[in-house]
Amino acid sequence: MIVKIIAIGSELLSGSSTDTNSQFIINALKSVGISVASVKIVGDEIEAITGALASENDADILLITGGLGPTHDDRTVKAAAQYFDSAIVFSEVVMQHIQALFEVRGIAELSEANRRQALVPEKAELIPNYYGTAPGLIFKKGKTVYYFMPGVPVEMERMFAENILPILQTSGTEPILSAVIRTTGVPESVLFQKIEQWIEINQDLAVSILPHFPEVHIVITKSSPNITRPLLDKKLDEVTAILGDDIYGYDADTLESVVAKQLLKNNLTIAIAESCTGGLIAHRLTNISGSSAYFQQGIICYSNRSKIENLGVREKTLADFGAVSRQTAQEMAVNIRRIANSDIGLSTTGIAGPTGGSPEKPVGTVFIGLASGDHKGTFHFRYNRDRLSNKIYFSQMALNQLRLDMKASYE
Amino acid sequence: MIVKIIAIGSELLSGSSTDTNSQFIINALKSVGISVASVKIVGDEIEAITGALASENDADILLITGGLGPTHDDRTVKAAAQYFDSAIVFSEVVMQHIQALFEVRGIAELSEANRRQALVPEKAELIPNYYGTAPGLIFKKGKTVYYFMPGVPVEMERMFAENILPILQTSGTEPILSAVIRTTGVPESVLFQKIEQWIEINQDLAVSILPHFPEVHIVITKSSPNITRPLLDKKLDEVTAILGDDIYGYDADTLESVVAKQLLKNNLTIAIAESCTGGLIAHRLTNISGSSAYFQQGIICYSNRSKIENLGVREKTLADFGAVSRQTAQEMAVNIRRIANSDIGLSTTGIAGPTGGSPEKPVGTVFIGLASGDHKGTFHFRYNRDRLSNKIYFSQMALNQLRLDMKASYE
Repeated sequence: MIVKIIAIGSELLSGSSTDTNSQFIINALKSVGISVASVKIVGDEIEAITGALASENDADILLITGGLGPTHDDRTVKAAAQYFDSAIVFSEVVMQHIQALFEVRGIAELSEANRRQALVPEKAELIPNYYGTAPGLIFKKGKTVYYFMPGVPVEMERMFAENILPILQTSGTEPILSAVIRTTGVPESVLFQKIEQWIEINQDLAVSILPHFPEVHIVITKSSPNITRPLLDKKLDEVTAILGDDIYGYDADTLESVVAKQLLKNNLTIAIAESCTGGLIAHRLTNISGSSAYFQQGIICYSNRSKIENLGVREKTLADFGAVSRQTAQEMAVNIRRIANSDIGLSTTGIAGPTGGSPEKPVGTVFIGLASGDHKGTFHFRYNRDRLSNKIYFSQMALNQLRLDMKASYE
Repeated sequence: MIVKIIAIGSELLSGSSTDTNSQFIINALKSVGISVASVKIVGDEIEAITGALASENDADILLITGGLGPTHDDRTVKAAAQYFDSAIVFSEVVMQHIQALFEVRGIAELSEANRRQALVPEKAELIPNYYGTAPGLIFKKGKTVYYFMPGVPVEMERMFAENILPILQTSGTEPILSAVIRTTGVPESVLFQKIEQWIEINQDLAVSILPHFPEVHIVITKSSPNITRPLLDKKLDEVTAILGDDIYGYDADTLESVVAKQLLKNNLTIAIAESCTGGLIAHRLTNISGSSAYFQQGIICYSNRSKIENLGVREKTLADFGAVSRQTAQEMAVNIRRIANSDIGLSTTGIAGPTGGSPEKPVGTVFIGLASGDHKGTFHFRYNRDRLSNKIYFSQMALNQLRLDMKASYE
């Protein structure tokens, strides 16, 4: 069964909005084992809409969103009427629905634009819209069934989940078996080299290696009916044995959620001193619900003054080695741990750019300090893109070193 | 001139990645007056790629991203060779580029996967890739020129901006006249009510009100040739007069960039004490290059202990009113200002959830404290979605109150 999506909306082609509806549909269909062959985004012009309907008609199921709204630039009803050669008629049922909807909102008087929503193509089967005025539309033509839905996400999502997915579900197979292996700190090409042979052997799996800055994900999907969940898990174990510590997690894990789990499991508290990451590490670690159990304190010390006064970094260290140095990173980590009385101290100092670099310490240089248990250490990385990407990369390397250190020391 | 985009990548149809490349291209083209007719997303299968190339060949310019990488699931080169009936040959030029790129990264030994990147279709004109190994490809067939770019955003963006946009630019007209008015803190429906009449009068403008959490943007585009840039600016002044402080900026402004400009202009320094936002405000304010000029210090004090020890919040305040209270927020702001010796102190304390709420102080409650010049104040907001959204909303409200306060006090 070929399923395709058409997203209608000039705003999707003007840079002001992105098409989130298709992602919702893709994920919903995935849960019942149906994959989507393509997504096409076109503007609100009638010819663009009818053109897309025609060019995508090799699909068995065509899911169309957008352009059903009340304003002058919603032209999907007109385009559908033209494409399916149907008259447009007034629907009493839809009108009653609109009136009921507005009564709930405390509006007695309907606008002309709202009344227009009751005009529907005669040949269409209607789908109720719980949250909005425009009904969904179903047409059949050739081998294709066309489902038209509103573009407003909350309206589309409920309509799709309640009225369309249950119909399609029966045509789906079991849920698509797949797993995501999440790695960080290792380039895509190196990962590929490591598992190339394994991929060769496992022809009944589809393996994709996908960069998701600052990570690389390996997506494994069953491409043969022989693969069962236990077999897929065995395959995951094989990849895990090959890649080892390159892997930080699986499926919906995030690096911060994995680090949080390690901290909680080992009953550890942490304090963070951030210079170049400016609060991003703390932000990531506190994105996890329950983070107050391990997150002791964070200090963002941008200036030398703040490093001296709030963190007790020695003036001599800053003078001799500079603020961006192994020595400063180490003192920051050791001192924040002492100040916060935590088990672990983690620090960053570097140059996020775009200015502030030197030939010796170019933009993108970062030193990470760690103090944990009876040991301490520093790490150095270099990376340069834009300021925000650099901050994200720095925070990622810091969290990853923390992960690796806890794994080695406590697990 | 018809311009279309094809985005290649099974990950874009599997729910694991969204197609951000097309948005980048759309925005870049918009700046030179070129609009995009459609976007088509297809998977990495050779037939899917060649099928899309064929079905979109009514375009004059076809911009294609993805599938040029080093791994086995990158099949665009093969598909292009097949579609354009070209042999695949080894390119010495590309090989030298790959070697140079890896030398910089300190890698002497190239993997087989990396060498494979030097295999290109013989009929293609090559485009250099500054950040990656895979070159871009240009083909001509019929009336269509095909530009193939890598899918990795940073590689694609530089390639497009430096090597493709300048060619297309000459075919563009004048830039599409449009402006974005950026607001925060006011619901979409309220904004609409305020400018409804103004929209009615200005039929030669296309006006869209688009929610972009945690903001609402008003996009104004000329829909008549009568509109010139000075006239559009006059129209912006009219909307600005109606909406006043609801507007924080225009076009590419961000709330943090606007706040940074205010701080710099008035020669003010700031220190931040964050509880529920966990470093996010500091992160946002330090995303601006040059932030060390105003960003004095940040403290993330999650626990009561940290609020007492590091910020000097009185135990009595915490006992009498709770950590999430106006009183605590106020002390946090006043104290961080004193500790950091800054001009402004800003604080947050609240419940990001999903746990930790009470009937009196439900999840989504936030108190914001501000100490600036000779005045101080607190602000209270309530909002609840998920933990991360709540943190984003809290940080947005804090930065917005800071903006409004500086506007009233210093401008």
